[in-house]
Amino acid sequence: MPRYALKIEYDGGPFAGWQRQASLPSVQGAIEAALARLEPGAHTIAAAGRTDTGVHATGQVAHCDLAKDWDPFKLAGALNAHLRPQPVAVVAVARVEDDFHARFSARERRYLFRLLSRRAPAVHDRGKVWRVPHPLDLAAMQAGAAHLLGKHDFTTFRAAGCQAASPVKTLDELSIAQVEAPNGLEYRFTLRARSFLHNQVRSIVGTLERVGAGAWAPEAVAEALAACDRARCGPVCPPEGLYLTGVAYPEDPFA
Amino acid sequence: MPRYALKIEYDGGPFAGWQRQASLPSVQGAIEAALARLEPGAHTIAAAGRTDTGVHATGQVAHCDLAKDWDPFKLAGALNAHLRPQPVAVVAVARVEDDFHARFSARERRYLFRLLSRRAPAVHDRGKVWRVPHPLDLAAMQAGAAHLLGKHDFTTFRAAGCQAASPVKTLDELSIAQVEAPNGLEYRFTLRARSFLHNQVRSIVGTLERVGAGAWAPEAVAEALAACDRARCGPVCPPEGLYLTGVAYPEDPFA
Repeated sequence: MPRYALKIEYDGGPFAGWQRQASLPSVQGAIEAALARLEPGAHTIAAAGRTDTGVHATGQVAHCDLAKDWDPFKLAGALNAHLRPQPVAVVAVARVEDDFHARFSARERRYLFRLLSRRAPAVHDRGKVWRVPHPLDLAAMQAGAAHLLGKHDFTTFRAAGCQAASPVKTLDELSIAQVEAPNGLEYRFTLRARSFLHNQVRSIVGTLERVGAGAWAPEAVAEALAACDRARCGPVCPPEGLYLTGVAYPEDPFA
Repeated sequence: MPRYALKIEYDGGPFAGWQRQASLPSVQGAIEAALARLEPGAHTIAAAGRTDTGVHATGQVAHCDLAKDWDPFKLAGALNAHLRPQPVAVVAVARVEDDFHARFSARERRYLFRLLSRRAPAVHDRGKVWRVPHPLDLAAMQAGAAHLLGKHDFTTFRAAGCQAASPVKTLDELSIAQVEAPNGLEYRFTLRARSFLHNQVRSIVGTLERVGAGAWAPEAVAEALAACDRARCGPVCPPEGLYLTGVAYPEDPFA
């Protein structure tokens, strides 16, 4: 059966995460149902990142096997027709080798976290950013972030229930950009790593927000990391600002 | 009674436009109801731009008269508390002179139109952009736009029911920027004028989109303008990409 890689964008708001669940709406379930409209029978797709409830994606990657030899453009269009009106779209499709695996072949995951600082509630980006009402210190957040770059034991920044074999991960990028937003300032956190621990991004951003607010000194981030103690983490921030923006493979299937 | 200027952001999606209507939700009605929670009785507010159904704002300005001498920060917070969960927020409040009038004192209105070109349906910006599935030629749209800059009889680009006294308006800016969007390209139209005719922005953008798609030559825009004939306008584009982003006054009340 020919194998296809799907690049997928979704609004995580209405879904109980990526992973299929018996009685809750999931992104995986929505796409598998759309596939079943094209080729009857059960479909099981695998994704690069199993995002949590409320987490968004602009560049999730999954793969599926289909009986028919589909034209990639037509397959994307047909899936999008069946996905409507759910906030999920297949933005690219590529025919891939049989040994391509969206999760196990992945060499890097990229995440974006959008943190909005403004006094008034979010309007246009409601559910798409984490809004805090106080100002944030960019330089302090960047100084705190510098301590987390590279290879570390991230036990402090890992969910209690995380099932990864090791807490040691290498963070290849953790940059923060300040951009003008309507009636406020937005802080965009970009994170890149081969893989992440469960809740690692939200634990890191939640901690750095405390630094930006002046509640933590930047050096306290280094101390929390060195403690390898979950209790030393800052508050885990809400999911609505988090986006899986891309997955890298030895060869880009969509190039 | 002290007079206050309100800077207002809203998602036009759930509203039948700015203007209060007996049996339909309106932005004006939502804000007047919030004011009535602070000071009982009827409130009538005036706005710089009476936006149509589905049109958004990040910088609408209205004024109101209140009995109490309100601290501007507290007034904004109290209004936002009563506006919740509607997608309307008061982003700034200022005490102004009694002769300040949000509509009649305004010297300039600024609009943004967001046009997204990508094959897949919009996901994160659904209802916030006009999405077209085909590519657009930026240089051609800019060449077409150049014909509309300055003082003209805009009869061609004016709704049949427009109630303005004269069709002559001066367009001080009509610029188009191409920006990267997730899995697509976004074209941001910025328009500035002392005032606009009814449906003028959507008539202009709808026509320039035809130029970008290659259906119209850029020079056809000049011919349509010169014809002063509504029938020569391109298709009026949908409201969901349109934002009232700001209003200028002789003195900025929010500075």
